[in-house]
Amino acid sequence: MRHDHLLTANQLTREDIELVLDRAAEVDANPASFGQRHAGTLLGLCFFEPSTRTKMSFEAAMKRLGGDVVDMGSVDSSSVKKGESLADTVRVVEGYTDALVLRHPLMGAAKMASEFVDVPLVNAGDGAGHHPTQTLLDLYTIRENAGLDDLTIGIMGDLKYGRTVHSLATALTNFDATQHFVSPESLKLPRSVRYDLHEAGATVREHTDIEEVLPQLDVLYVTRIQRERFPDENEYHRIAGEYQIDAGTLQAASDDLTVMHPLPRVDEIAPEIDGTDYARYFEQAHNGVPVRMALLDLLLEDSA
Amino acid sequence: MRHDHLLTANQLTREDIELVLDRAAEVDANPASFGQRHAGTLLGLCFFEPSTRTKMSFEAAMKRLGGDVVDMGSVDSSSVKKGESLADTVRVVEGYTDALVLRHPLMGAAKMASEFVDVPLVNAGDGAGHHPTQTLLDLYTIRENAGLDDLTIGIMGDLKYGRTVHSLATALTNFDATQHFVSPESLKLPRSVRYDLHEAGATVREHTDIEEVLPQLDVLYVTRIQRERFPDENEYHRIAGEYQIDAGTLQAASDDLTVMHPLPRVDEIAPEIDGTDYARYFEQAHNGVPVRMALLDLLLEDSA
Amino acid sequence: MRHDHLLTANQLTREDIELVLDRAAEVDANPASFGQRHAGTLLGLCFFEPSTRTKMSFEAAMKRLGGDVVDMGSVDSSSVKKGESLADTVRVVEGYTDALVLRHPLMGAAKMASEFVDVPLVNAGDGAGHHPTQTLLDLYTIRENAGLDDLTIGIMGDLKYGRTVHSLATALTNFDATQHFVSPESLKLPRSVRYDLHEAGATVREHTDIEEVLPQLDVLYVTRIQRERFPDENEYHRIAGEYQIDAGTLQAASDDLTVMHPLPRVDEIAPEIDGTDYARYFEQAHNGVPVRMALLDLLLEDSA
Repeated sequence: MRHDHLLTANQLTREDIELVLDRAAEVDANPASFGQRHAGTLLGLCFFEPSTRTKMSFEAAMKRLGGDVVDMGSVDSSSVKKGESLADTVRVVEGYTDALVLRHPLMGAAKMASEFVDVPLVNAGDGAGHHPTQTLLDLYTIRENAGLDDLTIGIMGDLKYGRTVHSLATALTNFDATQHFVSPESLKLPRSVRYDLHEAGATVREHTDIEEVLPQLDVLYVTRIQRERFPDENEYHRIAGEYQIDAGTLQAASDDLTVMHPLPRVDEIAPEIDGTDYARYFEQAHNGVPVRMALLDLLLEDSA
Repeated sequence: MRHDHLLTANQLTREDIELVLDRAAEVDANPASFGQRHAGTLLGLCFFEPSTRTKMSFEAAMKRLGGDVVDMGSVDSSSVKKGESLADTVRVVEGYTDALVLRHPLMGAAKMASEFVDVPLVNAGDGAGHHPTQTLLDLYTIRENAGLDDLTIGIMGDLKYGRTVHSLATALTNFDATQHFVSPESLKLPRSVRYDLHEAGATVREHTDIEEVLPQLDVLYVTRIQRERFPDENEYHRIAGEYQIDAGTLQAASDDLTVMHPLPRVDEIAPEIDGTDYARYFEQAHNGVPVRMALLDLLLEDSA
Repeated sequence: MRHDHLLTANQLTREDIELVLDRAAEVDANPASFGQRHAGTLLGLCFFEPSTRTKMSFEAAMKRLGGDVVDMGSVDSSSVKKGESLADTVRVVEGYTDALVLRHPLMGAAKMASEFVDVPLVNAGDGAGHHPTQTLLDLYTIRENAGLDDLTIGIMGDLKYGRTVHSLATALTNFDATQHFVSPESLKLPRSVRYDLHEAGATVREHTDIEEVLPQLDVLYVTRIQRERFPDENEYHRIAGEYQIDAGTLQAASDDLTVMHPLPRVDEIAPEIDGTDYARYFEQAHNGVPVRMALLDLLLEDSA
C-alpha cells in the first residue's frame, strides 16, 4: 500500500481495498505460510477505551503472523492518569514496538497520533470517527459470500449513530452496489452521509420497513439499536422490536441471502437464525483475524 | 482422551486420569521435549470472574508448549457489558483461537458453552460447579508424594462449600483410598456428596478433631475456612483457630505426611511449616503448569 | 554479575553498571543477535500497583529476547484480595516462571520477596524505596549522549520526594560527576541524601535558579513537580511555573546539552523542545528496552 498508517476507510482506493482483501484470501487459503512471516515483530496495543473483540483479533492476528503484542493496559492504570498527552504516550510506546494500534474515544485521535510516530499506526476506532479494519472485514465477508460486484445490500437498524454503517456505505461506493437503508424515521442516515454517498455516485434507497426490500437483497447487514438513544424505554422496545430478524422475517428472503452483524448483538437477530445458511455474522467476526493479518503484513512489509 | 472438552472431573475415568498424570510426569521429566510441541497454537482465555493463579498457570502451560494465549480481559471491558450472551461470546472467541479456557461464576456455564463451540474447551471453574484441572493437579501431587494406591487422606476445613474438596473426593473413588473428613459440625460434607461417595464404594470417615486421625494419614489436605460463611465474627475466629496446622499439631504426624492446600491460604497453615518436608502446597501450585500442559497437549492432539 | 537479584541501584558497583551498559550497547548495535537468546524463558510480572511504561518495557525486553511473560494482572483480581501474603504470592508465581519482576507500593517489598524465591527477581519500584532499572536506563542515556566521565549534570524539580533522582545521584557517585541540584526551597534534596552524596565524595552544588548553572551543564535532568505536594493550588502553580523549560530558557545552554526527563511530563518541558537536538527524553524512555534486555540477559545467564 502507499500508506504508512491506516486511519480511515475513506483513504483507501478500490485498489488498496482489493490488495488487502486478496492478501486476506491468501491467509485463509494458506495460513501456515504466514505463521512465521513477522517473527520478532512487536505490535503495541494502545486502547484508551475498552474493545474486547477488536483487541483480541488484532492480538490473534499479530500472533498468527509469528509476532507478539505489548499491551498498554487500561487507561486507569496508565500514565494518562498522570496527565500525559496522547502525543507523548504514543511516542513512548513507539519506542517499545514496531507498529501501533490505537483505540480512542475522541474523533480525530488516530490522525493526530499518527503525526507523532514513525512506525505504522492503525486506527482501531476513534469515537464517532472511523474504524477502518471493521470496514475491511465487512467488505471481505461480503466478497466471500456475495461478491462486491452488482451487489444489492440492505443496511438496517441504527443508521444515525452507527459509525460502522457510515464507513461501510462509503467504502461500497468504490464498487457497483445498490444500497438500501432500513431504519425508523428517528434513526435515519444523517444528511451528511447521504450527501456524500450521492456525491460518490452511489445508488441509495431509504425505507422504514424491511419487507419492502428484503426479497431483492444479496446481503442484509443488521446493526444494534441502542437503548440509550431513546429517552423513553417503551418507545425503545416498540421500535427495536420492529427491526428484529427471525425465521419468519427471512421467509421472504432469497435462499442466497447473507445476514451480517458487527456484533455484539442483543435481540436484533433471533438465535434460531444462527444455525441457518443465512447466518454469516460469526464468520464475519472470525474474518477479523485474516483481514488484520493481511493489513499488518502489508503495512510492515512497506515499513521494513 | 475420548473427550473433546474437559468439563468436570467426574467425566474422567481412572484411565483418563492416569493418561493425564502420566503425560504430566513426562513433562516434568523432560520439559524441553514439549517446548515447541504446539508452536503456533492460540489458547483463548475467557475469564468471566477473576482467578489469578488458574489463569497464570494456564497461560504458562500454553507458552511452555510453544503456543500463546489471547485473553478476553475482564468482563468490565468486554462485550458482555453490552448484553452479549455467553454463547455468542465463546463463538466469537473460538474463531480467534484453537482452544478455550472458560471461568464463569455460574454453575453449568462450561457445559452450556461447550455445546456452541467446535474447539476443545476446558472448564476452569464454574461457580459452585466444577474445576477439574484443580482436581488433576491435586491428584498429581498426591501421586508424586504418597501414591494413589492404598492412600489414607485427611481433608480438613470447609467441607460444606469447598468445590475443590468435593471434586477431589469424588475423583479419589477411582482409586483405593480411605478418606477422613475433618471439619466443624457447621461445615460438614453435604449429604449429597457423602451419598455419592458411598455409592461409589468409597471408605469415608468423618471427624471434628484432626488429632483423632492425624497419625494414620499419608496426606493432609487443608482448605480455607471463609469468614463470610459466619454471621458472627467471633464464632469465625473460634472455629478457624481450631482448624489450623502448626508445628505443634504435626508432632503427632507420620514423618512421611504430605501437607497440601489449594492456596491462597490465610492462617490455616503456620508459616513455620513452609520450610519442612511436610509442606507440598507450593509444589502443588507449581504442578498446575505440567498438569495443564499435559491436558492441553492431549486435547489438542485429539482435535488436530 | 555477582547478584542473583537486582534490588537497588546502590548494590551495583561501577563494574556492575558498566557490565549492564556495555551489554545494552551490544543490544542496540545488534538487536537481531539477541532475538532468540532466551527463547522459552518466561518472566513473571507481579505489579502490585500500576506502572504502564515500566511494565511495557520489561514485557518488550523479554519478548525481544525471544521469551515471553506471564502477568499477574491487577491486584483487584488476584489472590491478594483474599488475604494472601506477598511471600506466598511470589512463591506461587515463581513456580510458573523463570524470573520475576516486582512492583509494590511498600518500601522494602522487593528485598523481602527476594528472600523467598530462588529465581532472579528484579525490583521495578517499591514505593519510596528503589527503582534500579530506571537508574540504569538514565545512566545509559547519559553515557550515550554526554559520557559518564567528567560529567556536569543539573537535576531539577522535585528533589525532595523524587525516588528517581536520589537513585541517579547516588549511582553517579561511582563516576567523576559534578552534580547541580536545582529546586525551590521547599523541595530541596533531603538532608540524608545530601549526606550520603558527600560521604561518597561527590561534588554537589544546590541552587534555586536554573539560570545560575545552565550554561555549564552537559545534561539537564528535569523531573515533575507534583501538585499533591502543595496544600495551596496557587502556590503549586507559581512554583511549578518557575521550574519549566522552554526554548527561551535553553538559549543560555550549551549546544551539546542533553535534556532528560523520566516521563510522564506535564508542563515541565514545553513541546517546542521536542523537535530540537536537546530533547533526549523519548530516547531515554526507549532505552528502557535495551537496558532491561541487557539486565535480564545477564541475570538469566547467571541463573542458568
